This record gives sequence, C-alpha cells and structure tokens, in this order.
Amino acid sequence: MENQKIILANRPKGAPSIDNFAFETAEIKALQDGEILLKSLVVSVDPYMRGRMSDAKSYVAPYEVGSAITGGIVAEVVESKHNDFSKGAVVVGNLPWQKYTVHNGEGLNQVNPDVAPLSYHLGILGMPGLTAYFGLLHIGDPKPGETVVVSGAAGAVGTIVGQLAKIKGCRVVGVAGSDDKIAYLKDELGFDEAINYKTAEDINQAIADACPDGVDVYFDNVGGEISDAVYYVINKFARIAICGQISYYNNTSPATGLRVEPILLKKSALMKGFIVSDFAKDFGTAAKDLAGWVKDGKLQYQETITEGFENIPHAFLGLFTGENTGKQLVKVADREV
Amino acid sequence: MENQKIILANRPKGAPSIDNFAFETAEIKALQDGEILLKSLVVSVDPYMRGRMSDAKSYVAPYEVGSAITGGIVAEVVESKHNDFSKGAVVVGNLPWQKYTVHNGEGLNQVNPDVAPLSYHLGILGMPGLTAYFGLLHIGDPKPGETVVVSGAAGAVGTIVGQLAKIKGCRVVGVAGSDDKIAYLKDELGFDEAINYKTAEDINQAIADACPDGVDVYFDNVGGEISDAVYYVINKFARIAICGQISYYNNTSPATGLRVEPILLKKSALMKGFIVSDFAKDFGTAAKDLAGWVKDGKLQYQETITEGFENIPHAFLGLFTGENTGKQLVKVADREV
Repeated sequence: MENQKIILANRPKGAPSIDNFAFETAEIKALQDGEILLKSLVVSVDPYMRGRMSDAKSYVAPYEVGSAITGGIVAEVVESKHNDFSKGAVVVGNLPWQKYTVHNGEGLNQVNPDVAPLSYHLGILGMPGLTAYFGLLHIGDPKPGETVVVSGAAGAVGTIVGQLAKIKGCRVVGVAGSDDKIAYLKDELGFDEAINYKTAEDINQAIADACPDGVDVYFDNVGGEISDAVYYVINKFARIAICGQISYYNNTSPATGLRVEPILLKKSALMKGFIVSDFAKDFGTAAKDLAGWVKDGKLQYQETITEGFENIPHAFLGLFTGENTGKQLVKVADREV
Repeated sequence: MENQKIILANRPKGAPSIDNFAFETAEIKALQDGEILLKSLVVSVDPYMRGRMSDAKSYVAPYEVGSAITGGIVAEVVESKHNDFSKGAVVVGNLPWQKYTVHNGEGLNQVNPDVAPLSYHLGILGMPGLTAYFGLLHIGDPKPGETVVVSGAAGAVGTIVGQLAKIKGCRVVGVAGSDDKIAYLKDELGFDEAINYKTAEDINQAIADACPDGVDVYFDNVGGEISDAVYYVINKFARIAICGQISYYNNTSPATGLRVEPILLKKSALMKGFIVSDFAKDFGTAAKDLAGWVKDGKLQYQETITEGFENIPHAFLGLFTGENTGKQLVKVADREV
C-alpha cells in the first residue's frame, strides 16, 4: 500500500503558487495498540491556510517547511487497534494531507456517514454549521415571530444562522460589511433585512429601524458598536449568543466601551459565550437536523468538489482566483465499506 | 366594624418624629364585583420609607400629606367578590397603613400561611429572600465545592445569598464596604472569606487571593470595579447573576468600562439579568424551601415584632434609634380563620 503526502516545500512571498508544495512518499508504520489507520476521503482547502504558510505569528501556528500541510479531512478507519474506533467508522479531524495516516484518535470526531454526503461534515455539518446550530437554537432559542439579529451575517456561520432563524419562523436581520453581501443575504438567503454597517449613517438608527418590534435574539460574531446598537433595542427576556468578538481581536489591552450589565438587568436578558465543542455530545443530533434541512431545500449550501489527491494544491490555489462557488473540497478516495 | 388609618400629617425636617403621623377613622366601602376586603395582619416598617416622607425626587414617589402611608403588609381576605381570591386567603402586597382595605387584587401575591410565621413573608420569604433564592439557585446553579462570590454581601439580599451558597456546599466569598460588615459575614454568617473593597489595596489581587480555584458563580448587586475583579478570575462555564448595578445608579449617561463580552466568550460563561417577579410562578416552592432552611437553623433570620396597630409609628421611629435587631415588624391582628 503506497502512501503519499503533500508538504510545504517553501513559504510563499505574496500569492501562493504550485511551487510552494511538494509531493513525497510516506511510510505507513505498523499499528501499535491504541492506534488506527485512517484513509483520507475528502479534504477541505480553506483561505485561512494561507496564513499558516507564512512564518508570521497568528492564533494558529505556522506550518513547518518540509512537513505535511494539515487541515480538515474526512477519513475512514481502515484498521483499528483502538477500543473507541471500529474498522469502517468515519471520522472528521485536523489531519495531514496524506492518503493514509496512523493516528491515536485524539481530537477526532466520529460522524454518521449515512445522514448526508461525507463532504458536508467539512462545512454545513462541520464547525460552521454546528456553531450556528448550537448558538442560535440552544442559546438563542428563537420562537416563531421573534426578531433575530446576526452580526457577521455573510460569513460561514452567519449565513447559516440567518437561514436557521428563518426555518424557525423568525424575522431575520443581518449586519454585514458590503453591498454585495447585503444583496446576497436578502436576495439569495431570504433575510428580511440586512444592514451595511460601513455605509449606514447611524448604525443605532439603522438597527432600530430594521427591528420595529425590538430584538429577541442576537447572535454576535463581532462586538463593538454593532452590538451596542442592538443592545439599545433588545426586548425583555432577550437572549444573546456570543460566538465571536472579532472587533477586539487586535486589541492589545482588554476591550472597553458600553457596559452591557445594566442593560441585561433592566431587560432580564441572558448573554452566553460559547465554543462549538461545548456541545460535542449533541453533534450527532445537530448533524441529522442540519442534513434534513439541506435535503428539504430549506437550508442552502453550495460546494465545489475537485477530484484526486494530486489536485489538492490546485484546489487550494483556486480559492484565491475565485474558481470555487461555496465551499471548496477535494475528493481523494471512496469509502472501502 | 371600625376602620383606622395612619396618614402622613406633615413632612419631617431632619429626623422623623411622632408628630409627622396622625390617626384617622376610615370608612369601609361596600365591595363591588372584582374587589376584596383585606384585614391587615403584619406591617413592615422600613428605613426607605423615610425617603418617601420627603418631597424630594427619588426612584419611588413621595407619600402625599393627608394620605395613608403605604408599605409591605401581610393581610387576610375577609370578604371576596373576586374570582382569584377566596375568603381566608393570605396575601402580601404594598398596602396602606389601615386596619381594613378594599382592594382590586392587582399586585398582590397570595402566600401559603402554613409554611412559616406570616411575618416571614415580609422578609426572608419576601422580596429579599426570593431574590437571593432565584438569582443564586436558578441562574447561578451552584454545585458543591464551587466558589461563589457575592457583591453587596452584607445587604438584605447578599446575606441570604451567602448563606444559601453555604447550604449548597460552596466556598463563599463576600465583598462589602466596612470592617464591621466583614466581621459579621465571616463570624456570624459563616462566609469563608470577606473582602472590604474600600480598604483593599488592590481589589483584583484581593479577589484572586480569596478565590484560589477561580469563581464559578458570581451574584452581583454592585457592578463596576468589583465585578471586573471577579471577571478576571471566572472559570470556564461560570454563571453570573445580575441582581443590581448600584455603582451606576447615579450615572447620567450609559455606563462604560471593561467589556465583559470577550471574557464571557473565552470562558463559555453565562450572564443573566433578572428581577424577582420574573420567577413569580415559583414563589410558592421557594418560600417552602426557605422556610425549611430557617426552621432547620441553616438560614439565620432575625426579627423584632411590636404589637398593635397604634404602635406602627413608634416601631418605624425605632429604626432610626437602633431599637430593632434584624427585621422590624408590627403585628396588627390575628387571622380570623
């Protein structure tokens, strides 16, 4: 059984190119107790990987020159000496760009391969979909007729949040940063209102106008002035899910601004921070729900699938030239079972 | 049946005196449909009433000269033409200092007269007790061995919060504003630690030192820098109940300061504002629990009971000369049934 890997051959200067990658053969060590042999089935290529190809400090470590690139991969367990993983099981995790990988199982999530195409577990049923699902449905708990506001609305998470809120019968207002995004949210995804915060004359007034009945649920990816504008019009018993606070990520000291506590007090409102892994025990149920809504056409999800392990670098480079529509994936192999 | 009332005869200048009050006979109108006749049983006299005797603007309206003083009263329904109130029912509400009152029922809470002495419904089983109960137990949800911090710890609510947290097996840290209060919390009420925020050299360090395992539950009556000091050491999945934000009450514009949202995100923490009436449907259960803990000696509650309607003004004036230990009440009549 031959194994191959794709390594970072050298760091890109400016735009990445095919020369930054190299193919190498890789050995497959004999399995020890507590290990599994994984066969890569579907590989995710993502824009954030460009950052890891550089040597600069970031919130994730840079890739090492000479080592395999790593990223989201759906793989099949083809041999197992691990009690928690059976042969034929399908897992998702952060894995090297290799045809086969020996692994100890840590950090892998087993998924049900029958609920949806395997590729979905790297997108709509993966981190963005699950994050939207739990933040909106478990923390926001939206009721039909309520108003839901989502910031960072055109992002991977925000687009799903808005669609889930529509499925739940809510009025949905998105906040995003370009007119193209606003048009996409309203015309393609069915948001009731969308606000370009960069061009709004008065963001407080814009939010208030878009939410004449106040705000019952706020899904926040951003923080800062957009959040303040929402806080001013939350209703009694509002629920606020804090998913991201990107407006503060470059701060060098703790963020300051409007105190939300007196507003939460006055409105008997709830605010909850979360990370998707908090809800790991319910991933299976969530994936089933999400897959059902995609199948029923209630949840839009687009992907572009390239075929072949050898085409992973090309698929990655295509992200920067706009070759993909929706999520870009590479199919590497079929399941054995 | 003769009725009497106590009116504000004139406004005090400085300390209130017996001359500020006058007794008058009052008529008892015939009941209309939807009305009840209440017999006052126990009357609460409270320091805040001094404020209402003046003409100054405050968060509650001043009493009117010539009208009956009003306050917390436990009363019995002795006649009813109201579907929701049966003869013999016991209610608590804001009622005039009268022996009998005709009322439409709005704003009254019916209480179970069998769980505890009736006077308890004006204190430990009343607003302070219920506020502590729901904020700590329903929002804070403390587990044995967890660390609970309460600000405004020596107040009517804070003293109960701390004792309830001890009942739940927690390490309890109180924050208050005098050494006498600190000694009371530690020596009398069994708090594990108490911090005088006015004399602490560095409140952040003081909180961190008192909470070596971090903070799992924070019951906040205060806001501001005390809260910030707690936020810096909250644990993953911490719960923060916002009961009061007294440090901002005199602000003329929205409060600003540390943004708590990024901290809630990083710690997957929950923050919830509330007012005791949010939990009205569970008042009965709460009163039973609280009464049981008082009976078992687990929850300290002291009261001084004066006898007789005619002694209400004296009991009130005694608040300002330190004649009471704990909560001051006046017993006006026995139940008829």
